[in-house]
Amino acid sequence: MTWQEAVSEKRKRQLASIPQEWTLASLPSKDHLDISVFPDSCGLLTPTELEITRSEIDGLLSKLAKGDWTSVQVTTAFYKRAIIAHQLTNCLTEIFVEKALAKAAECDDYLKQTGKVLGPLHGLPVSLKDQINIKGIESTMGYVSWIGTFAERNAVLVDMLDSLGAVPFVKTNVPQTLMWGETFNNIFGRTCNPHNRSLTSGGSSGGEGALLALRGSPLGIGSDIGGSIRIPSSFCGIYGLRPSHGRVPYAGCVNSMEGQDSIMSVLGPMSNSLSGLKCFMKAVVDAKPWYKDALVIPKAWSEEDYRLVNHGGGKLLCFGILWDDRCVVPNPPIIRALEMTKKALLAAGHKVVDWEPFKHDALSRTSYEIWGAGCDEDYRVVAQISGEPVISTMGPDGNSEPGESKHKGGISAYKLWQVQKQKRDLRQEYLEYWQATQKTTGTGRPVDAIISPVAPYAAPPHGFNRITDYTRIWNVLDYTTLVIPVSKVDRHLDVKKLPHKFYSDRDKDNYDRYDPETFRNAPVAVQIVGRTLEEEAVIGMAEIVDTALKATKSQTASYL
Amino acid sequence: MTWQEAVSEKRKRQLASIPQEWTLASLPSKDHLDISVFPDSCGLLTPTELEITRSEIDGLLSKLAKGDWTSVQVTTAFYKRAIIAHQLTNCLTEIFVEKALAKAAECDDYLKQTGKVLGPLHGLPVSLKDQINIKGIESTMGYVSWIGTFAERNAVLVDMLDSLGAVPFVKTNVPQTLMWGETFNNIFGRTCNPHNRSLTSGGSSGGEGALLALRGSPLGIGSDIGGSIRIPSSFCGIYGLRPSHGRVPYAGCVNSMEGQDSIMSVLGPMSNSLSGLKCFMKAVVDAKPWYKDALVIPKAWSEEDYRLVNHGGGKLLCFGILWDDRCVVPNPPIIRALEMTKKALLAAGHKVVDWEPFKHDALSRTSYEIWGAGCDEDYRVVAQISGEPVISTMGPDGNSEPGESKHKGGISAYKLWQVQKQKRDLRQEYLEYWQATQKTTGTGRPVDAIISPVAPYAAPPHGFNRITDYTRIWNVLDYTTLVIPVSKVDRHLDVKKLPHKFYSDRDKDNYDRYDPETFRNAPVAVQIVGRTLEEEAVIGMAEIVDTALKATKSQTASYL
Repeated sequence: MTWQEAVSEKRKRQLASIPQEWTLASLPSKDHLDISVFPDSCGLLTPTELEITRSEIDGLLSKLAKGDWTSVQVTTAFYKRAIIAHQLTNCLTEIFVEKALAKAAECDDYLKQTGKVLGPLHGLPVSLKDQINIKGIESTMGYVSWIGTFAERNAVLVDMLDSLGAVPFVKTNVPQTLMWGETFNNIFGRTCNPHNRSLTSGGSSGGEGALLALRGSPLGIGSDIGGSIRIPSSFCGIYGLRPSHGRVPYAGCVNSMEGQDSIMSVLGPMSNSLSGLKCFMKAVVDAKPWYKDALVIPKAWSEEDYRLVNHGGGKLLCFGILWDDRCVVPNPPIIRALEMTKKALLAAGHKVVDWEPFKHDALSRTSYEIWGAGCDEDYRVVAQISGEPVISTMGPDGNSEPGESKHKGGISAYKLWQVQKQKRDLRQEYLEYWQATQKTTGTGRPVDAIISPVAPYAAPPHGFNRITDYTRIWNVLDYTTLVIPVSKVDRHLDVKKLPHKFYSDRDKDNYDRYDPETFRNAPVAVQIVGRTLEEEAVIGMAEIVDTALKATKSQTASYL
Repeated sequence: MTWQEAVSEKRKRQLASIPQEWTLASLPSKDHLDISVFPDSCGLLTPTELEITRSEIDGLLSKLAKGDWTSVQVTTAFYKRAIIAHQLTNCLTEIFVEKALAKAAECDDYLKQTGKVLGPLHGLPVSLKDQINIKGIESTMGYVSWIGTFAERNAVLVDMLDSLGAVPFVKTNVPQTLMWGETFNNIFGRTCNPHNRSLTSGGSSGGEGALLALRGSPLGIGSDIGGSIRIPSSFCGIYGLRPSHGRVPYAGCVNSMEGQDSIMSVLGPMSNSLSGLKCFMKAVVDAKPWYKDALVIPKAWSEEDYRLVNHGGGKLLCFGILWDDRCVVPNPPIIRALEMTKKALLAAGHKVVDWEPFKHDALSRTSYEIWGAGCDEDYRVVAQISGEPVISTMGPDGNSEPGESKHKGGISAYKLWQVQKQKRDLRQEYLEYWQATQKTTGTGRPVDAIISPVAPYAAPPHGFNRITDYTRIWNVLDYTTLVIPVSKVDRHLDVKKLPHKFYSDRDKDNYDRYDPETFRNAPVAVQIVGRTLEEEAVIGMAEIVDTALKATKSQTASYL
């Protein structure tokens, strides 16, 4: 069987896994770009299903716990909406309605018989990035070679979600290798941005981004090694958390570059609200994942940290705003999002200072060199099993021009160590740099968190998400980072500026490509960047930022 | 200048740094092997100095805090004793009396003027393994190439010790490269075991081991990547803690194989008592080292964990005893130490079960492969600066036969990742293996801690510490591990056994080499092995084991 035949067979199986009655007879035409309101208006969802899928996660969990809504009802509603989202954006990989509804029914039975919930996520459907193994289901991760390999065990996180009462119900699309900031592979094809289908949903957790933006799931789990949770969260207008390494169990997933122990991929939550991120993190950490995954750090969830006890109780925070990393100047909508955030924080009584970038270019370079040390061989070893080419571009041409990897041949272990040593030193320098801000904040503390762009642009056209430095450097530093949606590209507010003095060709290229019409309707977000393993405090500070932004927006309609 | 000339010049400087009045006119002859009581009887120390250097750390700190003893007095006493120890075992590298006494005087002044202590380690002299940088002092780490390189900055830990009120006062000997379980290099030569100078002090923190065993320091800081704290602690009869990675700040030290991010070296305390280990760990962690070293995990010191709240309050613990790793059977004194520990724990009302080794050979192999990936180039790059050969044996011939490293050329980064992936999987399997013991302990918990040999022998003759698996596998697993001295080799109690069925040539060789006379007077210890980042609980459990052993010993004089 050729790899193309394997793909064709897999696609047929995927199609057959979709219940006929949930497919839409008439879909918006391809040139209908913004399909974000379509699920609400398409008529497939009942009024209750619309209410369910529009609910915030706290409300959902409370109604599930009280039995006001059954898990079968809630799971069905989200499943139907997920299938609608899939037909609009091509966001799903594995669809297993029967298995999910069986688990949902178990939840309902348990509640009925005992009057108790199974756990803090009782009855809640949860979507999973394709790489997260569910027993008996494929995790192709966009590799044709892995079609037909059915997981023998649940990933540790899936077992935990199970114990917490959650209902894993779909898996979502990724780029082949996961090492792209967009979502395209030879098996499932491309995931589009629901706000403008000519734009990318981002990646590598791009299936999650599109699905969640269309409210086809209340909570999704992505992974992030260089921005893979935050880029799609930003591009699709949702919330996403990249925890530090060692907080959320990763064992039992498939992955790229396994054994690369230096800049590690992490799992984290994506949702339509901050409370979605918090309830996942608290539930998982409270369940002591360090007894289930050898790489998880034994560190209990701290409500004290969440209440910002080490940040002056959150009363007078000092944020540093990174306007520009001195490599690529962000486009106007991104600068506007930062300005909105600044204004909102000042209005809420907090302090805001400028955050000067510190060796961001060097930080960025080390990540390329560390991953480049062996990635080419890693990808080829898997791809060659099926004969599928390693994809060399996320552009519309797909893999028609494989070309040669610039990382071909890799480097020696000793050379890798030299780069990793540089990385370690940069992390140390960055810590000292951050600590030194204590002298200037006036709060008695160093800057509490950094507000940073997620990318120097809003979601770009397919194939053009080429600058991932604004997310990637925080992975190198292993800082906790959370994305908050702020606005959408607006051609009146985000007019093109006069050229600045360009840092580089990349910077000029980014300037040249900007045109508000290209990015029409694309969401715009910021990242809240905290310290390593500071998940509780970053969520706490993000709530302050989000509340401040919402307060400003409600006063200034033009920003919406 | 040849490397030999550089050595000669450095040795002259070392000699000149020793105050004349602290040198001994008459030293025991070379065939006087056990010199452990010599410092007490040599006449150089005054009665008060003897009292000071024989004190337990809690008593010392309390007298220093109250001003009963000044820091100058205490530092002088330990310095004199350290110089005696050095003349007997060759344990020191850097000697800086003036600098240390100046800091001690500062402590005294502060206390006098304010009535307060500088910190929890107020006035306490602390010895440091050679690799720990002190501004203005060399850290040759046994490399001739690094003679004449004076540290520009303190290591983070030295700054912290300074703030905590401690007085760094000597640096201690190591093997060239640090990657040996003995202590010999071309600059300072060999450190001997104070209990029997024909035996090794162990390594790589062997200078610390010999110094502390002779009470030439109340607290020493060593490092451990494969046993380098635990081997000398065991061989010299002291207590030593290998914390998990990320608990004690390492930034700013020199090291081997920097950038090797997979199985990392850690710093940890060595002392004559468990309270020495605890007071160091608590003082350092309470000072929030994660704001000073980017690799330290933000995890507060937990008295609750120390009180064993997660281990049933320490009332009925279940220990697993590893009698044999199925690779090399320990010699009779080691088995006796395990038997003594078992008996003591049973007498104290705890449970003891056998701990079956799980893939210890595979764990051991991964560490060799990971370090072997680039170590040869790492060593050569440094050694070739001076032209000094890379030492190829710790035996009496030293580096007379350099030979060729079996790791020559190293491996590719991609191949390294494959081994690191195996390591990760083994860690996960070991966690699951350990968790599964919950079914059989009868306590409702998995085994609380493992009691393991530190090596399959007591301190062997120089050049024969060749089996480091019993310590190294716990580094691969990143488990918290603590060494407790138990007994000494006794030719009546530790008679050679009849041959067993050998696992391998290594096993046979270990059997063949055993003869109680060879190991005369060598200390014997056990390791308490807990989970990753479980420092508090491991210290808490070690206190229970230590107390139980002391109770048994006081009843059974023959064991002493």
